[in-house]
Amino acid sequence: MRSQSYFRLESEADCDIREDSRPLVVNCAGQYVTDGAFTTNNPTGRQDIYLMYLSRGSLTLYADNCRHELPAGGMFLFAPGIPYRYGKEAGEELCYYWAHFTGSHALEMVESYGLSLGQIYFPEGQEEAATDFRMLFRCFYGKGPLFEAEAAGTLAALLARLARRSTQRQGGPGPWLVRDSLDYLYRHYAQPVRLEELAALEHLSPSRYSALFRTCMGISPQGFLIGLRVQNAADLLRRTDLSIIQVASAVGYEDPLYFSSLFHRKMGTSPSQYRKKFSTGHEAE
Amino acid sequence: MRSQSYFRLESEADCDIREDSRPLVVNCAGQYVTDGAFTTNNPTGRQDIYLMYLSRGSLTLYADNCRHELPAGGMFLFAPGIPYRYGKEAGEELCYYWAHFTGSHALEMVESYGLSLGQIYFPEGQEEAATDFRMLFRCFYGKGPLFEAEAAGTLAALLARLARRSTQRQGGPGPWLVRDSLDYLYRHYAQPVRLEELAALEHLSPSRYSALFRTCMGISPQGFLIGLRVQNAADLLRRTDLSIIQVASAVGYEDPLYFSSLFHRKMGTSPSQYRKKFSTGHEAE
Repeated sequence: MRSQSYFRLESEADCDIREDSRPLVVNCAGQYVTDGAFTTNNPTGRQDIYLMYLSRGSLTLYADNCRHELPAGGMFLFAPGIPYRYGKEAGEELCYYWAHFTGSHALEMVESYGLSLGQIYFPEGQEEAATDFRMLFRCFYGKGPLFEAEAAGTLAALLARLARRSTQRQGGPGPWLVRDSLDYLYRHYAQPVRLEELAALEHLSPSRYSALFRTCMGISPQGFLIGLRVQNAADLLRRTDLSIIQVASAVGYEDPLYFSSLFHRKMGTSPSQYRKKFSTGHEAE
Repeated sequence: MRSQSYFRLESEADCDIREDSRPLVVNCAGQYVTDGAFTTNNPTGRQDIYLMYLSRGSLTLYADNCRHELPAGGMFLFAPGIPYRYGKEAGEELCYYWAHFTGSHALEMVESYGLSLGQIYFPEGQEEAATDFRMLFRCFYGKGPLFEAEAAGTLAALLARLARRSTQRQGGPGPWLVRDSLDYLYRHYAQPVRLEELAALEHLSPSRYSALFRTCMGISPQGFLIGLRVQNAADLLRRTDLSIIQVASAVGYEDPLYFSSLFHRKMGTSPSQYRKKFSTGHEAE
């Protein structure tokens, strides 16, 4: 059995506090890992919102007298004031992450993310969720004046990310499924990129990868790459005084004429016209 | 030369927009790496707030006609509507991360973090800052309905973290300086922890590490460890129906009598009395 727990106020046992004076406040957070039997029973419920994310094992839980079977990868939000209980028998190992939060905008935020309290969601990306919770835990290290602000922002991002990944699953395959190759494309777009390399990052054959990318992103990997190059070139034209030859080379085109015709096709204007129109400085005039 | 850039709206060149209908909106973000010469000149300023974090090299910048020398590790916030320019000669490599943000609460948020526009700050932890920006970039992958919420939360956390690390530097050494050993303590408090191991994580001798920990945290490593064990035991007593022997063992004490006396000394009450007083369930009654 292993547990970690982090509390905003150590003087308040369990830190079960409703707080309406600030938009979002994280009361506490932690992780619980066990292969033993245990029961948690809270017949009156908490005053704050309870986020649970189960990363391993399975858990039977009751919230407001409704029974839910939470499998690994599932997340659940308990509403304030609702009785709940959960537990398991000895045997299978279980790991869950938890956070309790409150604030004048907490419920509104949850709703704006398209989440309902008392329902099971399945965010994709288990390792990423664990990393997110660890970042939340780190906010509590040593505390100090800004730790509550850091914790609130981190929780808002964590919850948005969990919600976003759940939504994408419900609405069909999303960018999440090709995130490793997207990451590579965003960082290496200026180099020659081979389809085989991208496919290998997602452990797929080039043809299967191409099809998946198109389904997730609505465009082919090659089309997406050209878009990235032109977008970054446009950014450099607006922002810097680099010559068009330098900009072309910076985004991966050694032939400035080829670059200019590509840019024109995508943006409807030549690089130099574009700079004249959008540059904030005087260099291009 | 390498650049990455991420824009909320691709239809708006430069995405330089003031937005008051939502509390916080990230317009765009990116990274720029170059060993060549370049100049950026914006004589009218932007409509949003501009966060720059220089991770390598040095930069001379002018904001509202004031000259600032930004060294590596420095961060700068440009106010909206303020003319600015910066640049460098060819030679030394420079790397900076940037984000532009707006929203009805953007300025208030910056102020609440104790940051002033037009000043240089030095957040500690360069790698961590880079990781934070990469997380911000990832929000823009594929976009979709919740990406703006995720980006806003991620930026709020990033900025709070940068501000918190800067504050700690100004106010003397903070927990940030012993973060690796803190991370270890929070995760392995239930195991026997040797001072030598902790010191090695911070690349210090045990005596220098002990002194630094005490300066940063106001308590010795050993005292901090006992505090963690008791805090986690209290959490398990409140939250679960584990026996006191199980709780003692879970936080690292094989001798329940020793655990009970330690708990009593710290909490002013015995484990079973504590459970009676704070447990939400009925198991302990």
